Amino acid sequence: MPGVAIKQGDANGGCLHEKPSDPCAIVIFGATGDLSFRKILPSLQALSCDKGLPEDCIIIGVARSALSIDEFRQRIRISLEENGAAMNNWDSFSQRVFYQSVDLTSMDAFSELAEFIKAKGNEFGTNNTIFHLAVPPTAYETIARGLAHAGLSRENGNWVRLIVEKPFGHDLVSSHRLNEALMEGFSEHQIYRIDHYLAKETVQNILMFRFANAIFEPLWNRRYIESVHITASEKLGVEHRAGYYDHAGVLRDMFQNHMMQLLALVAMEPPSLYEADRIRDEKTKVYRSLRPFPTNDLDSYLVLGQYAAGMMDGQFVPSYVKEPGVASDSLTPTFAAMKIFIDNWRWQGVPFYITSGKRMAEKHTEIEVRFKEVPHSMYRNILGEHITANRLTLSIQPREEVRLTFQAKAPGPAMCLRNVTMDFDYSQGSPIRLSAYEKVLLEVLLGDHTLFWRQDSINLCWSFLTPILMECDCPDQAERLHLYKAGTNGPHRVRQCWPDTEV
Amino acid sequence: MPGVAIKQGDANGGCLHEKPSDPCAIVIFGATGDLSFRKILPSLQALSCDKGLPEDCIIIGVARSALSIDEFRQRIRISLEENGAAMNNWDSFSQRVFYQSVDLTSMDAFSELAEFIKAKGNEFGTNNTIFHLAVPPTAYETIARGLAHAGLSRENGNWVRLIVEKPFGHDLVSSHRLNEALMEGFSEHQIYRIDHYLAKETVQNILMFRFANAIFEPLWNRRYIESVHITASEKLGVEHRAGYYDHAGVLRDMFQNHMMQLLALVAMEPPSLYEADRIRDEKTKVYRSLRPFPTNDLDSYLVLGQYAAGMMDGQFVPSYVKEPGVASDSLTPTFAAMKIFIDNWRWQGVPFYITSGKRMAEKHTEIEVRFKEVPHSMYRNILGEHITANRLTLSIQPREEVRLTFQAKAPGPAMCLRNVTMDFDYSQGSPIRLSAYEKVLLEVLLGDHTLFWRQDSINLCWSFLTPILMECDCPDQAERLHLYKAGTNGPHRVRQCWPDTEV
Repeated sequence: MPGVAIKQGDANGGCLHEKPSDPCAIVIFGATGDLSFRKILPSLQALSCDKGLPEDCIIIGVARSALSIDEFRQRIRISLEENGAAMNNWDSFSQRVFYQSVDLTSMDAFSELAEFIKAKGNEFGTNNTIFHLAVPPTAYETIARGLAHAGLSRENGNWVRLIVEKPFGHDLVSSHRLNEALMEGFSEHQIYRIDHYLAKETVQNILMFRFANAIFEPLWNRRYIESVHITASEKLGVEHRAGYYDHAGVLRDMFQNHMMQLLALVAMEPPSLYEADRIRDEKTKVYRSLRPFPTNDLDSYLVLGQYAAGMMDGQFVPSYVKEPGVASDSLTPTFAAMKIFIDNWRWQGVPFYITSGKRMAEKHTEIEVRFKEVPHSMYRNILGEHITANRLTLSIQPREEVRLTFQAKAPGPAMCLRNVTMDFDYSQGSPIRLSAYEKVLLEVLLGDHTLFWRQDSINLCWSFLTPILMECDCPDQAERLHLYKAGTNGPHRVRQCWPDTEV
Repeated sequence: MPGVAIKQGDANGGCLHEKPSDPCAIVIFGATGDLSFRKILPSLQALSCDKGLPEDCIIIGVARSALSIDEFRQRIRISLEENGAAMNNWDSFSQRVFYQSVDLTSMDAFSELAEFIKAKGNEFGTNNTIFHLAVPPTAYETIARGLAHAGLSRENGNWVRLIVEKPFGHDLVSSHRLNEALMEGFSEHQIYRIDHYLAKETVQNILMFRFANAIFEPLWNRRYIESVHITASEKLGVEHRAGYYDHAGVLRDMFQNHMMQLLALVAMEPPSLYEADRIRDEKTKVYRSLRPFPTNDLDSYLVLGQYAAGMMDGQFVPSYVKEPGVASDSLTPTFAAMKIFIDNWRWQGVPFYITSGKRMAEKHTEIEVRFKEVPHSMYRNILGEHITANRLTLSIQPREEVRLTFQAKAPGPAMCLRNVTMDFDYSQGSPIRLSAYEKVLLEVLLGDHTLFWRQDSINLCWSFLTPILMECDCPDQAERLHLYKAGTNGPHRVRQCWPDTEV
């Protein structure tokens, strides 16, 4: 009866044993929406091809539209086919897909949904439930309350899990309010707040790199590290997401989730055990140690930018304020660079430069650890005092790789140094790979919280970003917002502020 | 007037300026011998092709044979052509090559040689002299005394340098005696004791790797290193060198020079400056800290072997004792493996396994640093306690490369580790390369002692090896000598003694 869901392994790369996941109903709110069709349903269908979705799972789509089950299945089929999915298991998969129209404003509708889930549960033996909120954040509270009201959040010997997509609130206050609504019916252990960045292989590898190797951790501190640079740059502009983005901006879209997660993975202390709450405890400790931004000297710690028109790959692209759906006087930042300090024993005095922007010259996401120079150059008589310092790069996009730059003797009679690089391309010899979204869904099925945000971390990150967000909403924000040409490396201001951050 | 001899460089891989080498006469004793024709003359001719030999150098071949200058030049030409040397500068090169027949037993002959050198010096303006002893070691003392007697070792405002080839004595006593003979006319600063291993690029790179990078040195000690493995294995047998080798054995042939140098480069403290005597001081400190072999438990620290018949690359090869020129009851070891401890703060308790042998399965020379396992495995609940430890390999032959083995997450849904490797191939983008022999000759021209043995180090190494050498000469040596099949990894005994040394 139990499904596959490979999870545990041994040090030789083989997998010790399979841990079964329980049969369950996966209920998708917003089932007819973009996220559902673009990510959730394709991932579930892919997982059903022997990649971890138990055979005895069913999927219940929920939305306002009055669709029949067959119509819903038909729309999924078309969408999957359009995207070139392997359809060989379509028949068995589609027979386990159902649909229920629900009016979110009516508490009775939730009771009807409860009946439907219960009936299907009896029919298919799926007594556990996952609720996936693929709806606008404004609907989270209503649904959470509706589920609680209809008794659907109660576990009663089986399990009930709730998947929440970002954004987790719009600021500290709204985040608190959202959480209170979730907590009316659900407990923290039932809630899975998705950050699909955490499910990327290279991101997962950061902890293994640090803590399954004995040689990096001794260097991983203020004694040997000069600075840490975390960068996520995109070439894309705001695309079709202006409605959301112009309200959120880069700080809410990238920093209050992905960037803060990467920061925590690089900076955290070793957990005693690879276990969701031991890891999340250590992340929380990092967020608790963030040095608050000095509001009287914010310009030394923060550069905000917005893209102007420019050329990308030989094509003219418009400025942010000319994008469809963006207010023509929008002051929303599409770029931010921050200098962050972590006030603890390990990191005192080491700046973390965190940068993210749209319409940048290159799409890449990477963590670069810049080590200090040698404490003393024995080559000073022949090479001068300065020797280029070592760098370790954990590259997440576009290539998943680890690179170590070091100094070696240039071949030949002279005593010359040269910068050389050792690298490891993470994609070498990959077996089964899951997309980040498939991976997070699998983790929810298995009940593993490791890849998900915990509320205390969210609150701490919101607290940390609040002074900046407030500044952004101030009238003098216009002065702080530096325009940068699309297709460049962001505002010049960054190089002016922090000349040592240049590559 | 001054020659090229590039030496100094900057950190960008360019070379700051050229340091001139002085005009000189290079006098080769044993000029008609194997070493002269196989190594010295080809290297000098190669260096004369814009690779560092000053144009105003002359070469004076010295040997017993009664050859005319033209005959000597003709023999060089044929030999170079046979070996495919570029001959475009032959005319200018050969015009600076001379020959003098000398009877080593006659002090008058040395006086005649002095006259000849003086005359040529006046003619070509070469008032500095290099004497290269390319003769059997038994002739070193006679020549050194002859040179002193004829006043040829005196510097008188110019310089006089003496190149001595290994072996530097046969044991501690003979080494002392040889040195006394050299010192009758020469001072330590005039003597260049060649170990061409030290001139290999990768060997030179060991110090740069350690001391031009800030990230390796913090790990380079007993706290993080489990063991160090220095291996030099050859596929060749004794070849045409039986006369020398059966007398020397692997300990004198490989350990009392190359292996001890590699050991010192890996183990030494950082010198304050890249300067010959600062580096040689640090090496000497390593040799002074070697823990003496416990003569009552030698078998735990030493495995000696001799190759038996076997198959190499599909060909039958005879046992050592059946090789031409080897005594049929020879007990000369062709293989040795030692466990060495360095009694100092950095290395206390870290075993250095030093292994060298002939007729082994593979030709390779490398230094492998095996780090300790992680102090605590946070993955013990999913991967078990044991995680493969990191290894850093400095490979010298056949490929010159640096390899770092570490643990990364195996791609896929499971939490599995895999061993992965970052490497750097040292030959990438090489400009001018000198052979090791060209390199050492160039260093003598420049008067840089960095790549040469100093007498105090030689004495310390002989002292260290003496108890083993004495055991080898004992009647019960037969019991200690473990036969191993040609084409294998040496005696089984090694794996029995030190199971943890296996790859």
